[in-house]
Amino acid sequence: MRAATVRDGEIVVEDHPEPTPGHGEVLIAVRAAALNGADMMQKRGLYPAPPGWPQDIPGLDVAGEVAAVGEGATRFEQGDRVMGFVGGGGQGERLVVHERLLMPVPDELDWPQAGGFSEVFTTARDALFTQGGLQSGERLLIHGAAGGVGTAAIQLGAATGAEVVASVRNPDHHAACAALGAHTVIGAEDFADHGPFDVILELVGAPNLPANVKALNTLGRIVVIGIAGGAKGELNLGALMGKRGRISASMLRGRSFEDKALVAREVERHVLPLVRRGVISVPIAETYALEDAPAAYGRFAAGGKLGKIVLTMGS
Amino acid sequence: MRAATVRDGEIVVEDHPEPTPGHGEVLIAVRAAALNGADMMQKRGLYPAPPGWPQDIPGLDVAGEVAAVGEGATRFEQGDRVMGFVGGGGQGERLVVHERLLMPVPDELDWPQAGGFSEVFTTARDALFTQGGLQSGERLLIHGAAGGVGTAAIQLGAATGAEVVASVRNPDHHAACAALGAHTVIGAEDFADHGPFDVILELVGAPNLPANVKALNTLGRIVVIGIAGGAKGELNLGALMGKRGRISASMLRGRSFEDKALVAREVERHVLPLVRRGVISVPIAETYALEDAPAAYGRFAAGGKLGKIVLTMGS
Repeated sequence: MRAATVRDGEIVVEDHPEPTPGHGEVLIAVRAAALNGADMMQKRGLYPAPPGWPQDIPGLDVAGEVAAVGEGATRFEQGDRVMGFVGGGGQGERLVVHERLLMPVPDELDWPQAGGFSEVFTTARDALFTQGGLQSGERLLIHGAAGGVGTAAIQLGAATGAEVVASVRNPDHHAACAALGAHTVIGAEDFADHGPFDVILELVGAPNLPANVKALNTLGRIVVIGIAGGAKGELNLGALMGKRGRISASMLRGRSFEDKALVAREVERHVLPLVRRGVISVPIAETYALEDAPAAYGRFAAGGKLGKIVLTMGS
Repeated sequence: MRAATVRDGEIVVEDHPEPTPGHGEVLIAVRAAALNGADMMQKRGLYPAPPGWPQDIPGLDVAGEVAAVGEGATRFEQGDRVMGFVGGGGQGERLVVHERLLMPVPDELDWPQAGGFSEVFTTARDALFTQGGLQSGERLLIHGAAGGVGTAAIQLGAATGAEVVASVRNPDHHAACAALGAHTVIGAEDFADHGPFDVILELVGAPNLPANVKALNTLGRIVVIGIAGGAKGELNLGALMGKRGRISASMLRGRSFEDKALVAREVERHVLPLVRRGVISVPIAETYALEDAPAAYGRFAAGGKLGKIVLTMGS
């Protein structure tokens, strides 16, 4: 099988042996797999794949047809459309995944959308609701709202009855964020004037920390899941006490199998129904054939996009 | 009635008009009222009483007999022993309190113990469990464990099946903290070597923040309810993400009536049974007659005590 492959800091497309499914596992004939920030880190050697996953094939997103079912696997049958947030290896023609990490693909998603769904919606769902406890009527601020997780969070927040304020640096993306459901779209500098917020989703990092605390409502929650803009910042515990506020920091990487499977069940229960009802969508920026993976990585690194960049394969 | 009274930064004992209970309220013939840190702040003019409470009579703890019952008050009868965490005025001979802020006094508590129970056990219960989610089998670190809230937290943590590590600056108090149920008592500097901790109760402040994050277990929670040692500190969000950790900051002051009443119900349900079974106790350092309130304040300010300093009155 062919697969995007990390070789000496570059992405090449190479042949790999086809994997076979073990107990409880399914073999996926992959049809689409989005690129994510973690792939860029893995390409640079900074983000080794977790144990048990392909070490040199990137790809945390995967969508495809079930090609074979391992012993004891009962959730899916050959030919079923499945997708999931995996530990690596999404960007090859075949991938073996435990069935409990996979979700059915709703008819409403085509292959590129299915290949771009899992990582961002799983991350946004877990951050906003499991970590942040977002509920209807609350005010949500999303930093870095034009990114993949951000655009998922805009839609999930709005669908839950929260008032969504999207902080977006690039003015070119303001209209798209509003179209996805953000009630207010602001520049990255101005957010403190638009508070107070009940939940702040922090996708940028520590530089926002002092102003986040100031802009927090009583009983507000800051959920940090991205720190590309900086890891260390000053925290005023007195101000946080006055708000009776909370800061959660989280990542999906490194969680146990059970935890990842549980998160997949959460997404099936709370997000897939919204997809089926047409309430949320998966913005796609561009698709590339697997053999053009190096160009796709170049496009991702160039930035400026809104929506997922997805590799497609098979037919 | 006589009451400890704040006059120009000093505590005097003066006559005040006796209050009368309104709808849903009871008049308490006060028998005991502990001193707390907030009283010292109020004496210095830094901690004004919340609206609706006596403005110049300190005292957040109160215990006494019901002397009269207002219209519509049904929880208690004349002569019942009651106690509560109030907004102020505990340190006078009579106090009117809404019945839903009060709890019955178990037979196991004498008046000084009842007068020293509410503030510290309410604060510790809310911080450890409602904010921190402490559960059996977890490891709990308490900073400032020899203080009033700290000694309550040691007992509540141990009674819940947590392993309790008490951080105590004064070596004179180590044995007492161990006797209250702390499994390990350490100096204030050494805590990072004793982790990882699932819950860290921070009663000191920001200086501990960086080492708290380092000593946190995966999914650990830091609960900040005291910042006398400093309000601002550096937070490493990357480290907190790696732990998938959480920092909550909270205070009981400033909460709504409903919230305070709910916390009183929590204490009735989850702490008073432990008092009745003799599992937890209220350490008392010294008692002073109401007329000696100035001396009691002097003793409190001198520090070095373990256990509550309580004013007693009536007979």
